[in-house]
Amino acid sequence: MNHPLFLYLLLQLSFLIAPFNISAQEDYKLWLQYKKVQDTKIASNYQSKINGIYALGNSETIQAATKEMQSGLSGLLDRTIALQQNTNSENLLILGIQSSLDEAILKNLKNELDLINNEGYLIKSIQLKNKKHILITAKTDIGVLYGVFNFLKLLQTNQSIENLAITDAPKINIRMLNHWDNLDGTVERGYAGFSLWNWQKLPDFIDQRYIDYARTNASIGINGTVINNVNANALILTPQYLEKVETLAKVFRPYGIKVYLTARFSAPIEIGGLKTADPFDADVKNWWKEKAKEIYQRIPDFGGFLVKANSEGQPGPQNYGRNHVDGANMLADAVAPFGGMVMWRAFVYSEHDADDRAKQAYSEFVPYDGKFRDNVIVQVKNGAIDFQPREPFHPMFGAMPKTPLMMEFQITQEYLGFSTHLVYLPKLYQEVLESDTYSKGKGSTVAKIIDGTLDHHKITGIAGVANIGNDINWTGHPFAQANWYGFGRLAWNPYQDSETIAEDWLRMTFSNEENFIKPVKEMMLESREAVVNYMTPLGLHHIMDTGHHYGPGPWVSNLSRPEWNPTYYHKADTKGIGFDRSKTGSNATAQYAPEVAKIFDNVVTCPEKDLLWFHHLSWDYKLKNGEKLWNSLAFKYQEGVNQVASMNATWNKMEHYVDETRFKEVQMLLNIQHKEAKWWRDACLLYFQQFSGKELPKGVEKPTQTLDYFKSLQFPFAPGN
Amino acid sequence: MNHPLFLYLLLQLSFLIAPFNISAQEDYKLWLQYKKVQDTKIASNYQSKINGIYALGNSETIQAATKEMQSGLSGLLDRTIALQQNTNSENLLILGIQSSLDEAILKNLKNELDLINNEGYLIKSIQLKNKKHILITAKTDIGVLYGVFNFLKLLQTNQSIENLAITDAPKINIRMLNHWDNLDGTVERGYAGFSLWNWQKLPDFIDQRYIDYARTNASIGINGTVINNVNANALILTPQYLEKVETLAKVFRPYGIKVYLTARFSAPIEIGGLKTADPFDADVKNWWKEKAKEIYQRIPDFGGFLVKANSEGQPGPQNYGRNHVDGANMLADAVAPFGGMVMWRAFVYSEHDADDRAKQAYSEFVPYDGKFRDNVIVQVKNGAIDFQPREPFHPMFGAMPKTPLMMEFQITQEYLGFSTHLVYLPKLYQEVLESDTYSKGKGSTVAKIIDGTLDHHKITGIAGVANIGNDINWTGHPFAQANWYGFGRLAWNPYQDSETIAEDWLRMTFSNEENFIKPVKEMMLESREAVVNYMTPLGLHHIMDTGHHYGPGPWVSNLSRPEWNPTYYHKADTKGIGFDRSKTGSNATAQYAPEVAKIFDNVVTCPEKDLLWFHHLSWDYKLKNGEKLWNSLAFKYQEGVNQVASMNATWNKMEHYVDETRFKEVQMLLNIQHKEAKWWRDACLLYFQQFSGKELPKGVEKPTQTLDYFKSLQFPFAPGN
Repeated sequence: MNHPLFLYLLLQLSFLIAPFNISAQEDYKLWLQYKKVQDTKIASNYQSKINGIYALGNSETIQAATKEMQSGLSGLLDRTIALQQNTNSENLLILGIQSSLDEAILKNLKNELDLINNEGYLIKSIQLKNKKHILITAKTDIGVLYGVFNFLKLLQTNQSIENLAITDAPKINIRMLNHWDNLDGTVERGYAGFSLWNWQKLPDFIDQRYIDYARTNASIGINGTVINNVNANALILTPQYLEKVETLAKVFRPYGIKVYLTARFSAPIEIGGLKTADPFDADVKNWWKEKAKEIYQRIPDFGGFLVKANSEGQPGPQNYGRNHVDGANMLADAVAPFGGMVMWRAFVYSEHDADDRAKQAYSEFVPYDGKFRDNVIVQVKNGAIDFQPREPFHPMFGAMPKTPLMMEFQITQEYLGFSTHLVYLPKLYQEVLESDTYSKGKGSTVAKIIDGTLDHHKITGIAGVANIGNDINWTGHPFAQANWYGFGRLAWNPYQDSETIAEDWLRMTFSNEENFIKPVKEMMLESREAVVNYMTPLGLHHIMDTGHHYGPGPWVSNLSRPEWNPTYYHKADTKGIGFDRSKTGSNATAQYAPEVAKIFDNVVTCPEKDLLWFHHLSWDYKLKNGEKLWNSLAFKYQEGVNQVASMNATWNKMEHYVDETRFKEVQMLLNIQHKEAKWWRDACLLYFQQFSGKELPKGVEKPTQTLDYFKSLQFPFAPGN
Repeated sequence: MNHPLFLYLLLQLSFLIAPFNISAQEDYKLWLQYKKVQDTKIASNYQSKINGIYALGNSETIQAATKEMQSGLSGLLDRTIALQQNTNSENLLILGIQSSLDEAILKNLKNELDLINNEGYLIKSIQLKNKKHILITAKTDIGVLYGVFNFLKLLQTNQSIENLAITDAPKINIRMLNHWDNLDGTVERGYAGFSLWNWQKLPDFIDQRYIDYARTNASIGINGTVINNVNANALILTPQYLEKVETLAKVFRPYGIKVYLTARFSAPIEIGGLKTADPFDADVKNWWKEKAKEIYQRIPDFGGFLVKANSEGQPGPQNYGRNHVDGANMLADAVAPFGGMVMWRAFVYSEHDADDRAKQAYSEFVPYDGKFRDNVIVQVKNGAIDFQPREPFHPMFGAMPKTPLMMEFQITQEYLGFSTHLVYLPKLYQEVLESDTYSKGKGSTVAKIIDGTLDHHKITGIAGVANIGNDINWTGHPFAQANWYGFGRLAWNPYQDSETIAEDWLRMTFSNEENFIKPVKEMMLESREAVVNYMTPLGLHHIMDTGHHYGPGPWVSNLSRPEWNPTYYHKADTKGIGFDRSKTGSNATAQYAPEVAKIFDNVVTCPEKDLLWFHHLSWDYKLKNGEKLWNSLAFKYQEGVNQVASMNATWNKMEHYVDETRFKEVQMLLNIQHKEAKWWRDACLLYFQQFSGKELPKGVEKPTQTLDYFKSLQFPFAPGN
């Protein structure tokens, strides 16, 4: 079978019979394409090094790991790798937890596993009776599965598999997705179709998607999922729905993914028949205890509750004169006996609070530092407003050392062009994680707060608001898959570089060809700055159109709550533009550590990317490059448009490296993005020009429509609203 | 390359490297799987007879036909069939319209094409200079495309391709899908996810699905689609949406599919700024004329409007004291200059009409016979109530000889278990089409009315309310694909046998193995009678639970409109059960031709399957088999359950013939169906037992739950509601 002529003929034929119609399916497979390794030298090296699988243990997780390994290799190596019952043959992949390994194998280990946590893994080249093998082991089954995915990644990215000695372990305990999925199938801020969860057909119908969802998440180390919206419906806690949740939990369990639910604070009234949801009421406490018990009887490894309380109309403890600590601790007590967690969200702001919205969460939560139960973690968005293209890090990070804080990133693209704009978000995540809070002096980065090292927290967590829907490609935009992937990678290790992650993703998803990787990686890395430039440059924020947050709406000023209006945020007038949050203004800067406050407070030291976030400046204010603010703003908008044009040009050269369907999809979407970047530029500059009273500088294209035209645009039925 | 050893090795290897993860994609491909022909003798015959493609013409449709042929053959024959520039080589597939053929080819034709209509095709084995070829030709491009799909079907179903001389042409002009898709992405009565149409991303993003939708529909001859809900939103007629519709029309055009829209009768008010929508108002008439002009400027082959007027709360001409003719003719005048059609629905009933709901559409429409414009067709549901598992044919068929009537079948499964129940609906369609209206004496079948032969109508039509959504498998249930397929086949030729259609579908979709075909075909054919038995046997109807129509609700009697209550339909009391529609009752029977009325009127001649539709009978009434009604009813419910059990048993033996994903999907769904068949039996029999006061006969399983339990079941967020 290895006769060279035969292989040659086979390759020729494989090429000829490449089918027409499978490309729509590439999209579905995300970064687990497991396409045949194209580089023949590398492929033949892999072939020679992998000759069988020897799997120890029979848990569902080990079975999943073994199946994944077989499946992955059958694609990558284009042949079936047989399961072996012993280690007599050579070049085996040996899979199993440490305690299942026999003495001969264990002799190959040093103390690698002692140095890593329960979810970590080891991939190591070993010898048994002079035969070479590759061992993938861990303390736990799930560690083995993570090891398998990471071994497959080596092949997917064409790396060497010789002399392997890789240890790796996650730096954050809880790495989770938050699905804002409603029980009616819609997804709040979802732009990739509708909810994955088919509540109608659950519990008896298990969609193959649920399994692929779990596999895919496990491949990047995600270990938790909140399957329903933070704007919660209490029905999810009824037996009818818990039976369905139980089935999902069962499907996810072998892949190490725990299910969490959002808890609607008023559930004791709505489904419990009580007259109050007061957390001090004995019946209420008892109701939640019994509810927790009921859930854990069905789902012994249930993760716990995520709660949005007294925020944007959601019920909460304040309805009864209690506070966030009272509410969170009551729920924490209910799940504590079963090892459950409570994620209490800090995304609060009030129309009754006249203070700067950016200050309100800090003001409300920081006084509670140290008062929450041990199994409560406070979930904080990365910025103080709401998932903008760019925000300075949230001042709560570093301000509550006695309380574990969990990061909430957005993977879905509210305020970011939905799933029509290519924006590589790990650049944003990295910027936030690397931000220095100075809370314990220089080097007190957000990452160190999140992973517990700075304040010595045992419980650590990170959440991403999912961009997943039932579109065939899961995320609406083929490149939005990279945001899901990148979130998972950074959740595992918040110190990783987003460039490395982009490259891995491209290799796994599309191609290992250098002529593809290099330009497309650059395109991805530039994309986040592009969106900032064409939407909200120089620290502008929240000037999106109302409600759906799609497209520009800096003119909107008629909403009932002042802090819902874009005019609240940009404060443009004839004198200038920007929100003065310095000590001469709202003094939001004072919520940061003194070292940081000083930098932001001073218009000279304040990073220009955050300038209008912290300062209201004259249209004639000169930036460091000597240009006046008005011109600089205009140039930034133009630059954003130019960057998208350049992304288009790059992609148009990639036809050769990508299947036809995905190539065209991305091409069409980049065209939309280009059109809409111009729309943003023209609408915003025309609007701000009313105040600046200045001409557009040379080099900035003239708008082709009037401001009234842009104001007249309506988007009925915009998704996710 | 044809060395036998090589082929042997290749086959061995192909088997070994069968990938793991592609099976989820089989679902997507519907009946166009184009899998490699498995029977080696047949395959080798095909290989020897097909050696190239010679395509004449360069229209988009011919290009699509050529691409489909290549794509199909590359799968079926497992090799690329090259395009040829001439007929020098042998065994070519020659594609092209008659007028593009050269003299040498034309000599092979007799008058085959003269005998068929513009959409028909000819597939014929011919000789050119002693070389054998296969010619696929037609009068029009679309005929060629239909010919290509039908040639591929020959291969897909393993039929001979020697001495071919096939002519075929559709018997109905307008063969269309009705999508009840809302602009917010939900689908009324949709159980396969959400709408295919991504209005947010249109017009600039063309989902691959739109193309595959068009291809798939063309493969069965569908040539029209109403893309939005009959409960219409006027926004679809605004320029913003028409631009999106235009794009869809452009995508569908090469596949011979015309786009139609629903017209909300009050659109002139809602989007036109008029104060009335009175069809006699000059401004209103003019508004529609201008709107039609605007649409045709964008979409020159726009099909026309489908209208639901003065029905279930929809606005209509009666709001202004006008009638259906006034409304329909006004719209017809607007589209007539452009060759457009108006489909006016006859699905009307009123809460202000105390008469039997089953009689109201007839009463309202029949007096208008002959009064509609030539480009109006009245669209009538197959039965007089609403898409029940079984209804007698609608009395309007045969009663309006001067008006073309269009059939409206339901492909989606409202009242039929959603997409969780396997119900092969072509059996239902066939039963209706074969029904004899006696309108011009014996043999005046519904099919002959629909296809225009009985009353000599030039315009003929048939519509199916689509079961298509954005689920990966399009229809929610793998076997629901057969209903889409079967509808298309019967729309093309309403005289076909549903058994043949089932067999073709199975062969194309799953396997040509006889051991699979025979039992699974039987399962499909029995499935429709099964659902009648376990839901609504012996003529019962509309006893589904309220609103969502999922599951049994014969007890519901509290709805505001009497004819929405199940109790209105079954009229069970201590004396008996059934709706007396005979001359002693509502006299609905009088709406049929005298011959039919006589049969239905007489309880002795009335078919037992329709018994309780037409008669209220004592619980002790004896059926033809000598059993009393109560016992018969109970036996029917039990029989339905047994049939589903038997469907389960059949399917469980099919694992060997079907990919793992689809096998398991169907298995899980059949389990749900079995559970729910028992639910139907138990709930209905417990409820009716209150009136009959009789024990369940032997052989009928005892319910395991109480009637109160069944009454307590709630289905919040049931889809499609």
